Formats: sequence, structure tokens, C-alpha cells
Amino acid sequence: MYVCKVGGSAGIDLDSFCDDVAQLVRDGQRMIVVHGGSHETNRVAEALGHPPRFITSPSGYTSRHTDRRTLEIFEMVYCGSVNKGLVERLQARGVNAVGLSGIDGRIWEGRRKSSIRAQNGDRIRIVRDSYTGRVERVNKAFLDSLLDQGMLPVLVPPAISFEGEAINVDGDRAAAVTAAAFGAEALLLLSNVPGLLADFPDEDSLIDRVERTQLDTAFDAAQGRMRIKLLAAQEALAAGVGRVVLGDARGAHPISRALAGAGTVVV
Amino acid sequence: MYVCKVGGSAGIDLDSFCDDVAQLVRDGQRMIVVHGGSHETNRVAEALGHPPRFITSPSGYTSRHTDRRTLEIFEMVYCGSVNKGLVERLQARGVNAVGLSGIDGRIWEGRRKSSIRAQNGDRIRIVRDSYTGRVERVNKAFLDSLLDQGMLPVLVPPAISFEGEAINVDGDRAAAVTAAAFGAEALLLLSNVPGLLADFPDEDSLIDRVERTQLDTAFDAAQGRMRIKLLAAQEALAAGVGRVVLGDARGAHPISRALAGAGTVVV
Repeated sequence: MYVCKVGGSAGIDLDSFCDDVAQLVRDGQRMIVVHGGSHETNRVAEALGHPPRFITSPSGYTSRHTDRRTLEIFEMVYCGSVNKGLVERLQARGVNAVGLSGIDGRIWEGRRKSSIRAQNGDRIRIVRDSYTGRVERVNKAFLDSLLDQGMLPVLVPPAISFEGEAINVDGDRAAAVTAAAFGAEALLLLSNVPGLLADFPDEDSLIDRVERTQLDTAFDAAQGRMRIKLLAAQEALAAGVGRVVLGDARGAHPISRALAGAGTVVV
Repeated sequence: MYVCKVGGSAGIDLDSFCDDVAQLVRDGQRMIVVHGGSHETNRVAEALGHPPRFITSPSGYTSRHTDRRTLEIFEMVYCGSVNKGLVERLQARGVNAVGLSGIDGRIWEGRRKSSIRAQNGDRIRIVRDSYTGRVERVNKAFLDSLLDQGMLPVLVPPAISFEGEAINVDGDRAAAVTAAAFGAEALLLLSNVPGLLADFPDEDSLIDRVERTQLDTAFDAAQGRMRIKLLAAQEALAAGVGRVVLGDARGAHPISRALAGAGTVVV
């Protein structure tokens, strides 16, 4: 079992990604796809007059400030255009994909964190209108029923709170929890960089392997989104996932390359 | 088994609709929801600089001109904001809703009609960049598997062509084909009018019952969207659906009222 998350940043080649998924599915591989959509969300949010805002937590993680209007725009892009665009590409390649958010069938359930702490220069600010949270429970039975019918789940945030509200969750960490629920052999986190770079943004400084015990040192090198990917990797490995690959979704065969060890392998 | 389509026009009360769905589901009713989103799609399409265009066929049916960009905006609103908004409302009411488009799991499959005829004054124009079609096959096995797991399918166009392209289809007719596939006892088509009006838009001129054999006369009274609803009703009844109710989705208890016979009952 593989769980494969593809990001939503500029430069990511979703056609090549889907070619690779189709090949794996034809070969009988059981897998789940998770995807992002941040770049397109920012573009649409600007066009609709509600520009994106980001929050950096005191521990240095950056995330989208998701007020209710942002959540609605987020759902339009993530669950609407990006999710259905991926499902259509996969269907055209003969893969019976099913696109679902974490609120559908309560696939990803968790606690809403309605107030969060944000670092504002050297002060801490409390952000209260937040629709965010963290996935704590995966509806594995439902996902198994799709896989058993020969379907490929294509999952996307938001998740759902225990009270039934949509909550934005980090896609990499949601993929990690999903991989953990399945005891997956591999979790692939593909984005628009080659992997963890010792000297960001120098792509020649790729760190090709990180042992779990060295993760603290790896965090020191990580910039921006890569910090959350390392956190997701750490959570996945701690929960029994075989290995995590931080791979490159630009260009052909992004999944096969990552499975063959290209990128940063975390074990 | 009921199939209940709720429109996407201004004035429709989705909260009351979901209250009613939740009550029926609690009472053990097996049902499928289908929804629209035209009003919100028009609004977003304007905001994104791609205003909606409509086509009237030579036989007098009006539909959205769906070029590729329109299809993408359509998916954002129908599959993103409206679908997830409904699923969230239902989840908050304790209904385990699953929002799916017709392309997911090939729920609604049909032929793409890439060129369509449009009446342009007294001339016929051929529109070529059209991503539209008609549902010919319903993946009943997949929908049954959801229902059997205690889930409520919440379905929305687009459908998928046999070649794997997303195609816009009429939601009322897609609901009719779905009701037919299940041999449903009732198909409810709820919108922002009381039903078929003899003297549109005079809401006091409601026709409360139409026999199948009188449908030709009924078509003469129908204006705009109501013509397609009558066509959907005709198709559903011809395929064995018990009865069709053209009901009002404004105000409280729209489904219970329609089931009790409010609106236009077509038998």
C-alpha cells in the first residue's frame, strides 16, 4: 500500500503524475492519492477579492489563515477544480478515480482549533476566526470499500470536526495519518523541489537520506513548507509507515522516481 | 427509495432542505440527493471575468453554454462550494453524507455532444466548443455500496463521457435517470417556484396534478427551466418511477411538503 501526496504549487506536472498513477494501478498497486491546490487557491482568492493570508506559528510552521470565506474559496479550488481535474485526468487514463474531501463520509475527522497562536514580529497574536484543525481519525473502512471495488480514492482537505464543521488541515500531515491508518509501505510527499535541501534553494544540495534519529538536525536545514513535510514524515514513521520519500513532482515519472529512491528518503 | 433534486436558484433554503433530509434519514428512508448551483455559478463566473452564456435549442430548451473554462468554473461552484456546503450541513445534522460528482467512480456516464444547435433569432447556429451531454448509464452498484454503508450520496454534475471527459449535464434529467436506475417510488424536483404554473409567474395559478397523458398540454404552459423539469418527469415516469413532484424549495419542510403532495404531482 502506498499513499502519495502531490502538492499544489507552481511547476507541478499533474499529467505526468497521473500517467504514473495509471501505470501503478494497472500493475495492481493498491494506493491512495492526496493532493494540494495552494497556488490556484491564492490566484482565485485574489480574483474574488479575498487575498490569502498566512500565519506563522511560534514554533515556525506557516499555514493559511482560514476564516470562513477562505474556507469556502479553498473548497471551490481544492474540492472543485483541482480534485475534479485530477479525477478527470485519471478517468481518461482508465483509472476509476473517486474524488472525496475529508468531510465526505467523515474520511478525516479531527478537532477544530478555533483559536490559534501566531507569531507577529516578537509578539504572539491570537487568531480567533480559524477553521483549522488536525486529522485524528481516518475512516479506513470506507476507503477500503472503495479500494475493494477497484476504485482509487483521491483525497483532499478540508477534514471534518467532531461537531461536523469543515476544517482546513495540512495535506501532508493528513496524508501521513492516512498512511499510518493503512500501515502503508511508503508515503510519498511530492512537491516542486527535489527534496530536503541542505542549502535551500540550491537544488544541488539535496540530502538523499535522513534517518529517523537524525530528524532534529534535518529540521534545522528545512525552510517553509519543508518543515511541515518533515513533521509529517516523523509522524508517519512513528505510526509504523515503512518509509517516507520527499520527492519532486516536476517532470516525468514523479512517483516511480520517488519509489526508486530519488529525493530525500526518510527511514 | 426517493431521489430528491434541489435547485441552485436564488431563494432556495438549503438549511430547511437539510433539516428535512436529516429527518427522513433518521426515519430510515433510503434516498439520494442531487443538487444544482446555477445562481452561485453565474456570480462566480462574472467575478472571474468569464460571464455565463446560455443557449436555447431549436426545440426551446435553455442551457448553459459550457466551454472548457465554464466547465472549470462550474466544477468549482457545483462540486466545490455548493456540494461541500451541503455535505457539511448534513454532517452537522448527523447524516453521513458523501458528496460526489458524476465523474467520480463514473456515477453518471454518457455521450459528449461536442457540437450543439442553438436558435439565434430565426437562424440556427452550431456551437462547437461544448462540453455537454446526457446521462445514459448510472453506476448503481457504487451508489448501493454507499447506501448499504449508511451513507447518503449527494450528487452533482458534471457527468463523464465514455471517453473520460467531464461533461455538463442537466441536473433534473440526471436525477430522473438516477431515479429510474433505482426504480424509485418518487422523484422530487424542488426549485424556487411552487410547481408548474398555468399562468407564469402567477404563483396562484399552480397546476396541482398532471397525468402522464396530459404532458403535451402541460408543456404549453411551462416556461424556461420548467420545460426541462417536465421533460425529466416524462423520462422518469416512462422508465418506471412511481411519481414525480415539482415542488417548492423555499421555506420549511420542502421535502415533506412535496411528499405530501404540495406542488405539481406528475403521475
